Amino acid sequence: MPDSTFETHTVNASIITIGDELLIGQVVDTNSAWMARELNKAGIWLNRRVAVGDKKQEIIQALEEESRESMIILITGGLGPTADDITKPVLCEYFGGSMVINEAAMENVKNIFARQNRPMLERNIQQAEVPDNCTVIQNPRGTAPGMWFEKDGRIYVSMPGVPHEMKGMMTDYVIPHLQQYFTFPFIDHRTLVTFGIGESFLAETIKEWEARLPGRLKLAYLPNYGMVRLRITGIDNDSNRLQQSLNDEFEKLKALVAGWLVVDEDQTLPQVIGSMLLQREKTMATAESCTGGFIAHLITSVAGSSNWYKGTVVSYANEAKENILGVQKSTLETQGAVSEATVEQMAQNIRHKMNTDYALATSGIMGPEGGTAQKPVGTVWIAACNAGRTLTAQFHFRYDRQRNIEMTSYYALNLLRKLIVSENSGE
Amino acid sequence: MPDSTFETHTVNASIITIGDELLIGQVVDTNSAWMARELNKAGIWLNRRVAVGDKKQEIIQALEEESRESMIILITGGLGPTADDITKPVLCEYFGGSMVINEAAMENVKNIFARQNRPMLERNIQQAEVPDNCTVIQNPRGTAPGMWFEKDGRIYVSMPGVPHEMKGMMTDYVIPHLQQYFTFPFIDHRTLVTFGIGESFLAETIKEWEARLPGRLKLAYLPNYGMVRLRITGIDNDSNRLQQSLNDEFEKLKALVAGWLVVDEDQTLPQVIGSMLLQREKTMATAESCTGGFIAHLITSVAGSSNWYKGTVVSYANEAKENILGVQKSTLETQGAVSEATVEQMAQNIRHKMNTDYALATSGIMGPEGGTAQKPVGTVWIAACNAGRTLTAQFHFRYDRQRNIEMTSYYALNLLRKLIVSENSGE
Repeated sequence: MPDSTFETHTVNASIITIGDELLIGQVVDTNSAWMARELNKAGIWLNRRVAVGDKKQEIIQALEEESRESMIILITGGLGPTADDITKPVLCEYFGGSMVINEAAMENVKNIFARQNRPMLERNIQQAEVPDNCTVIQNPRGTAPGMWFEKDGRIYVSMPGVPHEMKGMMTDYVIPHLQQYFTFPFIDHRTLVTFGIGESFLAETIKEWEARLPGRLKLAYLPNYGMVRLRITGIDNDSNRLQQSLNDEFEKLKALVAGWLVVDEDQTLPQVIGSMLLQREKTMATAESCTGGFIAHLITSVAGSSNWYKGTVVSYANEAKENILGVQKSTLETQGAVSEATVEQMAQNIRHKMNTDYALATSGIMGPEGGTAQKPVGTVWIAACNAGRTLTAQFHFRYDRQRNIEMTSYYALNLLRKLIVSENSGE
Repeated sequence: MPDSTFETHTVNASIITIGDELLIGQVVDTNSAWMARELNKAGIWLNRRVAVGDKKQEIIQALEEESRESMIILITGGLGPTADDITKPVLCEYFGGSMVINEAAMENVKNIFARQNRPMLERNIQQAEVPDNCTVIQNPRGTAPGMWFEKDGRIYVSMPGVPHEMKGMMTDYVIPHLQQYFTFPFIDHRTLVTFGIGESFLAETIKEWEARLPGRLKLAYLPNYGMVRLRITGIDNDSNRLQQSLNDEFEKLKALVAGWLVVDEDQTLPQVIGSMLLQREKTMATAESCTGGFIAHLITSVAGSSNWYKGTVVSYANEAKENILGVQKSTLETQGAVSEATVEQMAQNIRHKMNTDYALATSGIMGPEGGTAQKPVGTVWIAACNAGRTLTAQFHFRYDRQRNIEMTSYYALNLLRKLIVSENSGE
């Protein structure tokens, strides 16, 4: 048997998202990325994603095009109770069915309204209507049922666009049933994260290794926030060969990028820090000015972070820096809120107040207003400390407000990571 | 002249995003939503969005399909310096050109590396190569230039996938040049935000009005976090008629939903609260437990929020609730951290500590761990206070951790909004 490659032996899927809100830009599509990940884990290769408006002709055209491309067509959106939601009647017509009430779906709609103690409307009852030529996928999380159609050996699944409803349906029903219906090749990944090396320089460092990768493996560069994630994706009908290949090449890659390696898993920086702190039985706190709680949010988005993270003080106002964080008035007056001395005091004081092993502090000017000649927009000071040492760093970011906040947060988290690592290695 | 409708008189655009990272789900596509908004403002109707992988055949197929659909095809991604980036050679071949060095782009690449004091590699120099049959769009924010192709009356623009680079190029070059090239109809919107009424009930309330909307106007429902945004989109070649229509219908709609109306603009809740506080010359602070800094992040993402927001204390650990927020030890012991008494004290104490007019506090169990029989995962207490009053509310959310955090944050912000509004109206 020849090596499988990315071009063969795969069952391809397409995603069609339906809704004018996607075309007018009021909603960011987070569903597709989640669906892509789940498909991938199951060995299904996502071929294309298409977004169309709530218009019959466009929906039908997308169905026809994707039918030519893929064996599996996943459709989200347009199943709500309002007049702009037309996915269900369009699918009914496209697959040549007629609408019938589904009793289980009706029970579900009634239960949801009874539980919420809300009156049920005619249009809610209509949500229990489905085409008679589909398999109904019940939706305990919402009023719109999913629909599973089969035609010419292809599978079409229509799901609500509400993220947690779609996710529940994918996990409980769609993925397991697709796995019964098709035989998939094995797809697997290895991911590592680097910090502090540019994408080009990284590519140069590993180009000879990359050129010799076997055909069943493929490398991707995913740069963001000063980090570059490197992901090897493998696809093969032979599971053992795939794992062996991935393991061999991943070890070589790790050796090549050792100097910049943050972690050899697909983790976020807060997850990496959390693992290190848990392992060492240490805790941390933060004192944020310019990042405005974003570091705390990144950390507390990690489940179980209460085991190692005690909290933050966001001192947007100078008086909060003085009164709650105990930064000296003289420091604020002579050196300013955005200064090395201020972030040092913020980090050291929050560590004492929160009674933690480590602490992290930020202060800067995120824009669009607030810059001066000496301290233009984008000027940032960060500090990370433990009982014995305080590391500081200054940056000048030149992005918009949102990205300046994000960049500062990730660079600050990386400074703390370096402090923890260096302590351990006795640097 | 007959009324224009959504089907006629429009110059349509398509977006093609290129990159395996989008198909494997490691990256959420936020570019498309931003681009859609900018196109819309300029009077360009986005028809379809397609995401394809870094494969020549798929890119070419997408170009051919979208050429049949749209007059404007915007392409992002695949312009980086690494081997998986193939957009540029594929476009060069598709449009029948050959590669040449662009001197201005070369200068730009050299400047960027000189400024960052980094060595320049051969692959960086190659980024200054462009097809000889395109107009080069310079990119002061990064090393990859953009490319503007014209063929059969259609415009194709290729831009980097890095958001701030793409955004700069769109604003500085692409939109103004498209406006010179085509004549667009007028597109405009009116948006309002409701809180506390379900999508179905809202639809029922306004269905007679909606059914009578003129053909040039269209209504969309955008539910999220307990809010429903209602957006009227209008498209017309006659600007005066369009504005008159939009104004008339928007007034009628506002009257119909007055009982649930938060704001009659497309604003976020933090923006609404910020406007109210600025107008009243008041300030606020927050004390967050379960929301972990997310409320602070939402607020501090609003430019100028330092004028009305003083900061937050995120007290993830009980000792922080005691030591920094001054919650009574006896309250924590007898009623627990997730209780009405605790959030009342958190709100009142942070208001004093931060010396503000208003304060907001949250405490709850976001999951997946930490629930008990009495207080299951999703149990949340929130409090909003001013000098004279403290409002509290309890919720039971049943989503995943991330969404529980988001829902709690928005319901808390809405409680504060109601407190501010009620104070003003003397309720």
